[in-house]
Amino acid sequence: MSRERLYLFDTTLRDGAQTHGVDFTLHDKQLIAQMVDELGIDYIEGGYPGANPMDTDFFSRKPKFGHAKFTAFGMTRRAGRSASNDPGVAALLEAKADAICFVAKASAYQVRVALQTTNEENLASIRDSVAAAKAAGREVMLDCEHFFDGYKEDPAFALACAKAAYESGARWVVLCDTNGGTMPDEIETIVREVVGHIPGDHLGIHAHNDTEQAVANTLAAVRAGVRQIQGTLNGLGERCGNANLCSLIPTLKLKGEFADRFDIGVSDQNLKTLVQVSRSLDDILNRAPDMHAPYVGESAFVTKTGIHASAVLKDPHTYEHIAPEAVGNHRKVLVSDQAGRSNVLAALERANIPFEKNDPKLTRLIEEMKEREAAGFAYESADASFDLLARRTLGKVPDYIRVLQFDVNVEQRSNALGQRVTVAMAVVKVDVGGEQLISAGEGNGPVNALDVALRKDLGKYQKYIEGLKLIDYRVRILNGGTEAVTRVLIESEDETGNRWTTIGVSPNIIDASFQALMDSVVYKLVKSGAPA
Amino acid sequence: MSRERLYLFDTTLRDGAQTHGVDFTLHDKQLIAQMVDELGIDYIEGGYPGANPMDTDFFSRKPKFGHAKFTAFGMTRRAGRSASNDPGVAALLEAKADAICFVAKASAYQVRVALQTTNEENLASIRDSVAAAKAAGREVMLDCEHFFDGYKEDPAFALACAKAAYESGARWVVLCDTNGGTMPDEIETIVREVVGHIPGDHLGIHAHNDTEQAVANTLAAVRAGVRQIQGTLNGLGERCGNANLCSLIPTLKLKGEFADRFDIGVSDQNLKTLVQVSRSLDDILNRAPDMHAPYVGESAFVTKTGIHASAVLKDPHTYEHIAPEAVGNHRKVLVSDQAGRSNVLAALERANIPFEKNDPKLTRLIEEMKEREAAGFAYESADASFDLLARRTLGKVPDYIRVLQFDVNVEQRSNALGQRVTVAMAVVKVDVGGEQLISAGEGNGPVNALDVALRKDLGKYQKYIEGLKLIDYRVRILNGGTEAVTRVLIESEDETGNRWTTIGVSPNIIDASFQALMDSVVYKLVKSGAPA
Repeated sequence: MSRERLYLFDTTLRDGAQTHGVDFTLHDKQLIAQMVDELGIDYIEGGYPGANPMDTDFFSRKPKFGHAKFTAFGMTRRAGRSASNDPGVAALLEAKADAICFVAKASAYQVRVALQTTNEENLASIRDSVAAAKAAGREVMLDCEHFFDGYKEDPAFALACAKAAYESGARWVVLCDTNGGTMPDEIETIVREVVGHIPGDHLGIHAHNDTEQAVANTLAAVRAGVRQIQGTLNGLGERCGNANLCSLIPTLKLKGEFADRFDIGVSDQNLKTLVQVSRSLDDILNRAPDMHAPYVGESAFVTKTGIHASAVLKDPHTYEHIAPEAVGNHRKVLVSDQAGRSNVLAALERANIPFEKNDPKLTRLIEEMKEREAAGFAYESADASFDLLARRTLGKVPDYIRVLQFDVNVEQRSNALGQRVTVAMAVVKVDVGGEQLISAGEGNGPVNALDVALRKDLGKYQKYIEGLKLIDYRVRILNGGTEAVTRVLIESEDETGNRWTTIGVSPNIIDASFQALMDSVVYKLVKSGAPA
Repeated sequence: MSRERLYLFDTTLRDGAQTHGVDFTLHDKQLIAQMVDELGIDYIEGGYPGANPMDTDFFSRKPKFGHAKFTAFGMTRRAGRSASNDPGVAALLEAKADAICFVAKASAYQVRVALQTTNEENLASIRDSVAAAKAAGREVMLDCEHFFDGYKEDPAFALACAKAAYESGARWVVLCDTNGGTMPDEIETIVREVVGHIPGDHLGIHAHNDTEQAVANTLAAVRAGVRQIQGTLNGLGERCGNANLCSLIPTLKLKGEFADRFDIGVSDQNLKTLVQVSRSLDDILNRAPDMHAPYVGESAFVTKTGIHASAVLKDPHTYEHIAPEAVGNHRKVLVSDQAGRSNVLAALERANIPFEKNDPKLTRLIEEMKEREAAGFAYESADASFDLLARRTLGKVPDYIRVLQFDVNVEQRSNALGQRVTVAMAVVKVDVGGEQLISAGEGNGPVNALDVALRKDLGKYQKYIEGLKLIDYRVRILNGGTEAVTRVLIESEDETGNRWTTIGVSPNIIDASFQALMDSVVYKLVKSGAPA
C-alpha cells in the first residue's frame, strides 16, 4: 500500500480557549502558536477574529511560521445577509490568515432550534461564505457542526451541508462530533458512507471527549478514510475537552496500523519534544500537569509493582508499549535507587554540564535534588535553577553575591485627595567581593520593588545584568492547608532574547520570589562568564 | 434481541493501588469497598492477601456487602510447586473471599523472559491453581496477563492459557491488555476469534489507558462478545490508569447501543450518585478532582461560548449528549467575556439572586463585568466575587466593613545564631459601623499575615467569620511585561464545609490578594445573613 499524508490541525487556541478555567493572554497565544508550529502541525487555528479584541489583534499580522498555516475561525454569513455584507465574514477576510475555517450547522434539528432558520438558507450560507473566502485567495474549510448527530436524524441534510462546502471549493470538510456523545463504531460507519460522496483526502474529524473516546473516535474516522485530524494539546477544550494531540501524535507515529500507512508533519526528532511541549503549555497556563496522561505524563512509564519492576529491569518491553524516549519521556522504576541516578545523568547531558560518571559529588547532587523535590522544587520546569544547583554541587559556581538582608513593605492608604493608593518599597543589602552595597527600590508590587532594589547596584557585576528583564512570574501553592508552601517560577530574558526559568520554594511568597530572582541573576552571570 | 447481563468488576483497590501517588490505608479500602458495593458493582477486588499485611488483614473477615462478591487477587502457583504446597495459593484460599481472581501470563514471550519457565509449566500452573480454588468452593477467574500482545505473537499459546482456565472450571477468563498499547480494532478482532473457543458470557476485558483508549477498548471487547468488564473508579491504576468505570457505567446505561441490549447491576437511581462516588474517592485520597472528566467532572456540562450558551438556554439537548442529572451532575453556563446577557441572567438564577428582567441595573452589571473582565477579572472562576458584584450592582450588599489602611512588611535577615530568618507582619485598620479597629498579625508570608490581621477583630461581625479558613491561593500574572497585572484567586471554606472562590486583580500582588480576602469575608457575612 502506498503511503498517504495525514494532516494535523491544532485548535488549542480556539476550541481550547473554551476550556473552563483557561484564559489565554495574547502573549500566551503567541508563545503557544510558535511551539505548535515548531512541533510540525499543519494548521494552527488562532482564534475567532472579530469576536473579541484579542483575537482581532492576534490576526492583525501573520506570525512567522516555519511550517503551519495560520487559520482564522468564524461563522458562515448570517441568514438574510450576503457574504459581502456580513460583518463576521468581513472580519475573517480582513484577518491576516492563510486559511479560514468556517463553522456551520449540519443538523436539521440545530438549524431549526438553535439558528431558527431554514435548511435552504443554511445551505446557501455555506455556499456563499466558502465561495467568498475562496475568491479572496484563502484556503477554506468548513467545520460541519453536529455532523454525526445530524446524520443520525437526517442523513440527506447532513450530507448536503458537507457537499455544499466541498462543491463550493472548500479544501477540507470537517465532520464534527460537537456534543461528544457518538461511539467509535458509529463514527466509522457514518464516515464510510460520507467517503462515498466526498473523497477522504478532503475530509477531517473533530471529536470531543464526553464519553472518554475522543482519541478512539478520531482514529476510527481515520480508519474509515478522513485525512485531517483536529485536536488540541493536552486535550484542552470545552466541557471534557477535544481529541488530545499529545495522545494521537505518538499513536500515529509509533503504532504499526498507522505508522505503516501514513506520514504526518511531525518528525521523529520533534516527537521527542512532545513531553516538553505538553509541560510548557501547562506552565504557560499555570495548570498542574496530568501525571497520568498517556505518553507524556510523569507517571506514564512509572512502574510501582515489585514484580513488574523486576521484569522491566530484565527487558523494558515486558511492561512498556513503546520506548518512553521516543516521546521525550523517561522510564521511572519507583522501587529502585538506580532510577534516580539515571534520571539525573540524563538531565545533566541535556543541560550540557560536563560530569564524571564516578564523581561522588554526583551522588550528593542526586540526594540534594530528591530532598528539594520532596520540599516542592520542580526542576523539570526550571532549567536555570537546575543548571545552578548542578554546577554548585559539582563545584563550579563562583560565590558572586551574598545577600545580607532584605526588607519589603507594602502599604495601602488614602492620599491627600482621598484616593486609595498602594505603594511598595524594598531595601536589599548585599556583599559583592567584600564590598557592602545597600539599595532601595520602588515598584508596582513587592516582587517588582525587590527586583529593582536587588539589581540597582551589584558593583562590578552590574554591567552583566543590564539587559536582564523579567518576562513572567507564576505562583502555585503546594499541599494546601497549614503545611502549604509557595512555589514561584520566574521567566527571565536577556538582551539577546535568551530565556530561562528559575524557581523558589518557601512558606513565604516573598522569600520564594527572592530565591527565584537571585537564581536568575546568578544564572545570567554564569552564562555571561563573569569572573569570580 | 433478548437482553443480556453485563458484569462489572472493580479493581480500584488492587490495580488502582498501583497508581503513582496513591497509598490506601485499610480504612480507605473499607470505605471505598462499601461505596462501590452500594453503587451496584458485581465484583470488588480488594487486594492481594499474602502479599502485604494490610491486604491480608482486609481479607481476614468478609465485609458486609449488599450486592458485590468480595474478590481476592493473587498469582497461580509457582513453577515446581503443587497448588497445595504453594504459600501464595494458600494465602488466597485462607482469605475470606467469595471469589478468587488468579493472574497468569498468556504470552510465550513473557513466560520466557519474565518468568523464565516453560509454556507447559505455565499451563499446568493455571490448571492446578484454578482447580484448587474451585475445589475450595470459590468462584474462580483468571486474568490472562498480556493476552493481546501474547495473541499477536503466538495465538495458539495465548488461547491455550485461556482455555486451560476455562476447562479447569474458571467462571471467568479475563483478557488483559496489560501494557495498554492495543488498538480497539485489534481488541475487537482478537476477541471475536476467542469467542469461537470460549463462550462470551465467560470472558472478561481488562484494559489500560496508555493510548487513551481504555474505555474504547473495553467497549470494543463488549461489542465482540465479552460479558465482564474490569475497571477502576476515576480510572486509577498503574501508569496511565485502568479503564474508567465512571465513564463506562453511564455509557452502558445511557447509550442506546448498550442500554438497549444489556442490563448491569447499577440502577438508574444509583447512577445519579456517580458524581458523588467519584468525588468521594478523590476526597478520601486527597486528590484534586479532574474538572474535565467525562460525565462526572465539574466542567463536563459547562458551556463557555456565548453562541452555545444561548442555544443551551433554548434547548439543553443542543449541546448536551445526555442529561447531566442522570449521573448527578448539573449544567453550568459560564460568565465570561464571550458570553452575553443570557449568560449573566443564568448565572444570577443559579446564584439565587433575585432580579427583574427589565431592571436597567442589569445592563450596568453586564457592562461592569465586561470592563472588569477586560482588566483581568475572571468571574467564571470566582463564584463568590461574581455573587458580590451582582448583589452590589443590583443594590443589595450592606457596607459592613470599610478598610481605612493596611501595611504589610516582610524582612529577611540573619538572627543571633547566624540563621537566615524571614518574618512577615501586617497591620489592618478598619471602620465597622463607625467604630475604628486596628489589628496586627504575623504569618508565614505577607498574605497570611494580612489575613490574620484582617480577621482578628471585626467587632460585631467577628462571630460570623470564626469558622472561615483559606483553602487555596492561586496567582497568575496577566499581559506579561510592563503592563502586567496580578490575578489572585482565593478559595475559602466555612465550618459547614461550604467552599467559595474570590478574586482580586491589581498590578500589586498584595493589593490583589487583599481584594480577594475582603471579598471572601464579605461573602461569608452576606451568606450568614449578618445585619447591616
